[in-house]
Amino acid sequence: MALTLEQLNTAPLPEAVALLDGVYEHSPWIAEAALAARPFRSLAHLKHALVQVLRDAGEDAQLALIRAHPELAGKAAVARQLTAESTHEQSRAGLTDCTPEEFERIQQLNRDYNTRFGFPFILAVRGPRGTGLPRSEIIDTFARRLANPPDFEREEALRNIHRIAEIRLNDKFGCEPTLGNDVWDWHERLAQHSDPGYAEQGQLTVTYLTDAHRACAQALSHWMREGGFDEVEIDAVGNVVGRYHPAVPGARYLMTGSHYDTVRNGGKYDGRLGIFVPLAAVRELHRQGRRLPFGIELVAFAEEEGQRYKATFLGSGALTGHFDPAWLQQQDADGISLRDAMQHAGLCVDDIPRLKRDAARYLGFVEVHIEQGPVLTELDLPLGVVTSINGCARYVCEMVGMASHAGTTPMDRRRDAALGVAELALYMEQRARQDAGSVATMGMLSVPGGSINVVPGRCQFTLDLRAPTDAQKDALVADVLAQLRQIALRRGLQYTAELAMQAAAAPSDPVWQQRWEAAVQALGVPVHRLASGAGHDAMKLHELMPQAMLFVRGQNSGISHNPLESTTSDDMQLAVEAFSHLLEQLAAEQT
Amino acid sequence: MALTLEQLNTAPLPEAVALLDGVYEHSPWIAEAALAARPFRSLAHLKHALVQVLRDAGEDAQLALIRAHPELAGKAAVARQLTAESTHEQSRAGLTDCTPEEFERIQQLNRDYNTRFGFPFILAVRGPRGTGLPRSEIIDTFARRLANPPDFEREEALRNIHRIAEIRLNDKFGCEPTLGNDVWDWHERLAQHSDPGYAEQGQLTVTYLTDAHRACAQALSHWMREGGFDEVEIDAVGNVVGRYHPAVPGARYLMTGSHYDTVRNGGKYDGRLGIFVPLAAVRELHRQGRRLPFGIELVAFAEEEGQRYKATFLGSGALTGHFDPAWLQQQDADGISLRDAMQHAGLCVDDIPRLKRDAARYLGFVEVHIEQGPVLTELDLPLGVVTSINGCARYVCEMVGMASHAGTTPMDRRRDAALGVAELALYMEQRARQDAGSVATMGMLSVPGGSINVVPGRCQFTLDLRAPTDAQKDALVADVLAQLRQIALRRGLQYTAELAMQAAAAPSDPVWQQRWEAAVQALGVPVHRLASGAGHDAMKLHELMPQAMLFVRGQNSGISHNPLESTTSDDMQLAVEAFSHLLEQLAAEQT
Repeated sequence: MALTLEQLNTAPLPEAVALLDGVYEHSPWIAEAALAARPFRSLAHLKHALVQVLRDAGEDAQLALIRAHPELAGKAAVARQLTAESTHEQSRAGLTDCTPEEFERIQQLNRDYNTRFGFPFILAVRGPRGTGLPRSEIIDTFARRLANPPDFEREEALRNIHRIAEIRLNDKFGCEPTLGNDVWDWHERLAQHSDPGYAEQGQLTVTYLTDAHRACAQALSHWMREGGFDEVEIDAVGNVVGRYHPAVPGARYLMTGSHYDTVRNGGKYDGRLGIFVPLAAVRELHRQGRRLPFGIELVAFAEEEGQRYKATFLGSGALTGHFDPAWLQQQDADGISLRDAMQHAGLCVDDIPRLKRDAARYLGFVEVHIEQGPVLTELDLPLGVVTSINGCARYVCEMVGMASHAGTTPMDRRRDAALGVAELALYMEQRARQDAGSVATMGMLSVPGGSINVVPGRCQFTLDLRAPTDAQKDALVADVLAQLRQIALRRGLQYTAELAMQAAAAPSDPVWQQRWEAAVQALGVPVHRLASGAGHDAMKLHELMPQAMLFVRGQNSGISHNPLESTTSDDMQLAVEAFSHLLEQLAAEQT
Repeated sequence: MALTLEQLNTAPLPEAVALLDGVYEHSPWIAEAALAARPFRSLAHLKHALVQVLRDAGEDAQLALIRAHPELAGKAAVARQLTAESTHEQSRAGLTDCTPEEFERIQQLNRDYNTRFGFPFILAVRGPRGTGLPRSEIIDTFARRLANPPDFEREEALRNIHRIAEIRLNDKFGCEPTLGNDVWDWHERLAQHSDPGYAEQGQLTVTYLTDAHRACAQALSHWMREGGFDEVEIDAVGNVVGRYHPAVPGARYLMTGSHYDTVRNGGKYDGRLGIFVPLAAVRELHRQGRRLPFGIELVAFAEEEGQRYKATFLGSGALTGHFDPAWLQQQDADGISLRDAMQHAGLCVDDIPRLKRDAARYLGFVEVHIEQGPVLTELDLPLGVVTSINGCARYVCEMVGMASHAGTTPMDRRRDAALGVAELALYMEQRARQDAGSVATMGMLSVPGGSINVVPGRCQFTLDLRAPTDAQKDALVADVLAQLRQIALRRGLQYTAELAMQAAAAPSDPVWQQRWEAAVQALGVPVHRLASGAGHDAMKLHELMPQAMLFVRGQNSGISHNPLESTTSDDMQLAVEAFSHLLEQLAAEQT
């Protein structure tokens, strides 16, 4: 018999604590403290309250909780030491059927891990979908996490404990994230399609208009139709466009969507989450036979990553009238022109100009996207509301001084190119910290042909500067370049700084941002606002209509453009619920 | 009729100014100001006084003087624009016989140079030996100096003006540096011998016991015999040892010398200057038929650079009993063992232990060496007295953080490995500046596999830390490593730091250092004391007897281990005179 929130909210404290027994291993104090936040408005609210208790408990209590967990076992014999729940979870992940080699590997990893961190390795072995991780993935994760910095790994252990608790709570409350599971499963199915050379190695790569790419478009069309979209078409640039009609013909549309192409050896969720979350929400409307006072246009953009051709944002750009015909002459690595690739795919190049949308027929654009950064996961928050897509400027630079003998050149006679660059790097760090939301990165840094006993005469480096508004970005760029000039002058160095890329900021429309905030608020989790450091299709639509984005927490520090990109079906469920809430708000406003 | 110092010292000021007419192009004010320092004790004293006036005159006066010079011409037609002296000098350097291509190249360089610096290119075309530079070298120098930082190039122009003035003064006073010229010529002749693979490209490489190396030993033996050394032998490790007997048999010896091997594609003067300067001084004694109350043992050390075998200081080490028999098993790049190489050269390995010197039979060790650093050339001083050979420690290090997305990782969520290293580099700079004579260098620095849009997860770097005493070096090392630890802790980074090399400091013996100071003083140029940042044979002899070194100014910022290593025959002349003065001091002390 499943527990209900009503029961938990009304039970006397000791009884309520007992109801949550086993959610956090041997630590009833966590439940007890969290229950002070009753009444819980949602299961997400309860989960957050529990997480918050542990966040506030301090390092000693956190370590005690971590140490209360058993080691990851490799065999039924060892598994017997574990608590009942843990054994059950590990067995579900197939850990009790290890080969002797796998068992030995896990024991060695346990020893190494304990030596390095002083606490046992904790992994939510039921994984992001709740159905269990394959043994190979468990072992790979173990080995990978062994290299983490100790304080980071302690936090990662806590995040895994929270995930274990989340799954235990789902079980206790009989509450499966069914919509999130469907969204998760769509990602898996779409990830079956991958370009030649990558597919064979189990890597995901879907670049513009390859066979895999066109198979994705077919699958998306099919699922949109299944989901109840009234019209579904693949447009002249390969975007898959589904339209769910409004209650009244002629009403305006809400546009939403994201891209289905990927970077090479990328993750499964980048872009696609912004297709499947609205798809799940619209499917629910369809199932309920509901029409809204506005239509919903879901666009699965064909191209955002600029991998096969240097034509980034080709898909969303076509909708804003920014398809550059000169791109058609571009050739891919095999010498196939964009024009030929489009003809081969059956796309009518001549129709592209007609893709440009009339802003008057749209309410606005919203996009759901995996965060691709560490903010939400480190704050233990499933969702975040985007305030702006940051503007960006990149420079490729070189500092030139004079190489000289490290032993014989006195400190006050040097023109050390690397020291000038070091100074700039530290200035960038403190300058970016002065702003809310600015980031400044020196990603490439090297003394070419350097020797241990030679004062660096040259130093090559890059600048990547981003901020939520153009004014803030321009000020950041100006300050960094001015500092570069001053450092070079003071140190007697020469430099070059070549602008490599520039993009304007796209601040969220305040009204649309507020709708996302209200939706998140309604789910019972705190609203966290953050800027998007990466570019998104919403940047292009921004030129035509108001836009705002919702971010979903990514696991593994929010890593993206990497097979380790991941998020849970529970977080996906919350994203669908937030999206549906936004639809309801709009519907209420329109009537 | 040559001018004499007596004339200049006694002439009324206007007449004295007239006597120096033309030494500094169109700038009688320089002579006028310098003459305030009369009476001049030596031509070197006069030269220094002139230099000093320009050093103190400020940037505007310096630029005016530079701009008073004509452009470097390429043809007789253009040369006619030049002042008589300049034309004469340029003609002597063969510049009036340019090919049309060379002429065009020089005109283009003149244009580029003027655009970059705003003043004409000035080169002492008669070169370090006073006999004229080949056209190709003039053009190469022009192109090279075009890349200099502007303030450095202004100073380089002034140094060339001083060199032009020096040669003009030599001409005016009919004063050729004949001993310096001989020393210069010996270097040229010894540099004819170079290892295969380098000789063909005109590069100088003489590594231990190659054919070129053994030819050098033969030439050195020959010149020592010609110079009047009583006994000359090639010892069991290939050192060429010349002994000039004392007036009384059984008297103690002064040991001096330096090495004749080179690094690959090295300079002509590194080491060898310390052989030829004493050779010239002893030859003068021999010519005068003089014996001193002590003997002189000149050792041309066979190996100092550790190029062919990892057995650095093999030559001087053999004299202090530090030849390690395990070295004999070492193989060179062609698989030839050190033992086989020595046998092939006819050296008796069994005799090596007998090379160890009995300290009681020596007064001490002195070594003359080209500075291999920028100090003397930047101070416009020909000679410097070494206070210590710095102790040294080297580390190879890596900082490890976490790579993450440059756009999406907020500044306060980063573990940027490169920023930690940047902080350390700047700390090293300010920490080394706190000491007299300490140097700290991060010569290698790189973010392996870095990308413009990725926060650096790893950063590899090196430390080279040196100081004049071991206590000072150890404190420097301890502070830098402590700072590394603190930075890593504060920034959540991991690091490794592996000691790659360590050498103890060798402070000069105060009494011997004082003798060098007195010798320099006697020449009429200021005494400048400096530590040696590089290691020298004197470091090894230091273990057995008191030692002190004299440094000779190097041109081209004191560059060494490079074909651009250079010094003038005028500076060599002063070194021979200083060495002779030291001999006279010792002789006076012994009687």
